[in-house]
Amino acid sequence: PSDMGLLKGTGIDTVEVAALPEVAVVPTGEELVQADPAPGEVVETNRFTVSRLAERWGADVTRRGIVTDDRDALRAAIQRDLVRDVVVTTGGSSVGERDLIPEVVDSIGEILVHGVALKPGHPVALGRVEGVTVVMLPGYPVAAIINAVQFLRPLIKHLGRMPLEPLPTREATLTRKITSEPGIRTFVRVALEDGDSGTEATPTRAGGSGVLSSVALADGWVVVPESKEGIEAGETVAVENWEYNG
Amino acid sequence: PSDMGLLKGTGIDTVEVAALPEVAVVPTGEELVQADPAPGEVVETNRFTVSRLAERWGADVTRRGIVTDDRDALRAAIQRDLVRDVVVTTGGSSVGERDLIPEVVDSIGEILVHGVALKPGHPVALGRVEGVTVVMLPGYPVAAIINAVQFLRPLIKHLGRMPLEPLPTREATLTRKITSEPGIRTFVRVALEDGDSGTEATPTRAGGSGVLSSVALADGWVVVPESKEGIEAGETVAVENWEYNG
Repeated sequence: PSDMGLLKGTGIDTVEVAALPEVAVVPTGEELVQADPAPGEVVETNRFTVSRLAERWGADVTRRGIVTDDRDALRAAIQRDLVRDVVVTTGGSSVGERDLIPEVVDSIGEILVHGVALKPGHPVALGRVEGVTVVMLPGYPVAAIINAVQFLRPLIKHLGRMPLEPLPTREATLTRKITSEPGIRTFVRVALEDGDSGTEATPTRAGGSGVLSSVALADGWVVVPESKEGIEAGETVAVENWEYNG
Repeated sequence: PSDMGLLKGTGIDTVEVAALPEVAVVPTGEELVQADPAPGEVVETNRFTVSRLAERWGADVTRRGIVTDDRDALRAAIQRDLVRDVVVTTGGSSVGERDLIPEVVDSIGEILVHGVALKPGHPVALGRVEGVTVVMLPGYPVAAIINAVQFLRPLIKHLGRMPLEPLPTREATLTRKITSEPGIRTFVRVALEDGDSGTEATPTRAGGSGVLSSVALADGWVVVPESKEGIEAGETVAVENWEYNG
């Protein structure tokens, strides 16, 4: 906003700007339905969460329909969106023993990364097909969001020539012990509350409710670095707010 | 985004939401022109900066043309937008010895606040006309932005039932002494740079360039509280990024 004011004030009415990065979001999985799930079926939600996040980060997003776990259908779905800057798939990057989407990407392009030491969400994969980046997010909704923030957000900012600011953080006192495996960067969703000794952070997952609710009810997450094994109750932690919206 | 996913995943396709707050931005001042200023004229820029900030905060913004410093014209301009939630005027809240806009608001409604102990930008005024809040920002571009962040942002968040998050801050070491008057909360624009001892903050105003450039070239501002008289070089400061954009 202040750049626009400065340009206008100095008599410049027209400037060249970077185009909004074009991102296609392609949900995949034979278990997925748009609504009214029968037993064994799951309502697809990543299109909403990941697409809306990508829009907030500055992307022009195309939402695609659900693609089933079929090699030809997946290939066609990816190829259809090679006119854009980024193709994001969700689901199927490590379905049981199959790694269908990375296999398909490998057959028409190259896989750059497959599997990262973070939790939840290690089976993320990154590849390139004809110069277009393919971000293969896990289907598990919490893992999809965490990986989108780690990999899709910097990619969109880079393509759109926007500054990549650190996520806003707030300091809080952890009310319950967090466990994590050493060697794995772990994202623990927490809710913030004003307590006797300032802001307190309580993990939202411990309640046993659904996994997406652990994100929706959270005010942010605590990142436990791979060099640590958990964090004790009472320690001061930095809570990252990945949904900060002005 | 995660709330939308959670709703969709639990079978809820329709929810009632708060309407976007409707905000009219009305630049005022007989010295203002849209472009090509003659001597003594000034190009109007607040419409760009303030409107764009208000949109980022979640408002549905109507940009109005320049209104001259005339009691009847100002009254008509404010009354035209009483169908909205907020009328923001810029300029003229303390023009020389006249306080035209607060006088006009007082004549058709009430003035709640006139003048606050912050710098730059003390002549801000807040009022109400027929239940509509009128935010009277100073015309000085830096003061308009600072006051918009202090008063318009919380108002938009409140009306839209959005959480009012603290502005994202980064810690930095101040490279030059900041002066301020005790009793006045002072906003000092700074640019951030990676230095030997971590992030360093340097005031952008000292260079003597135009005032709006002190904002456009800044990465945030340091708030010197009214209880302090300046901050010494070498002290650690929190730099607020009021233009953080995801």
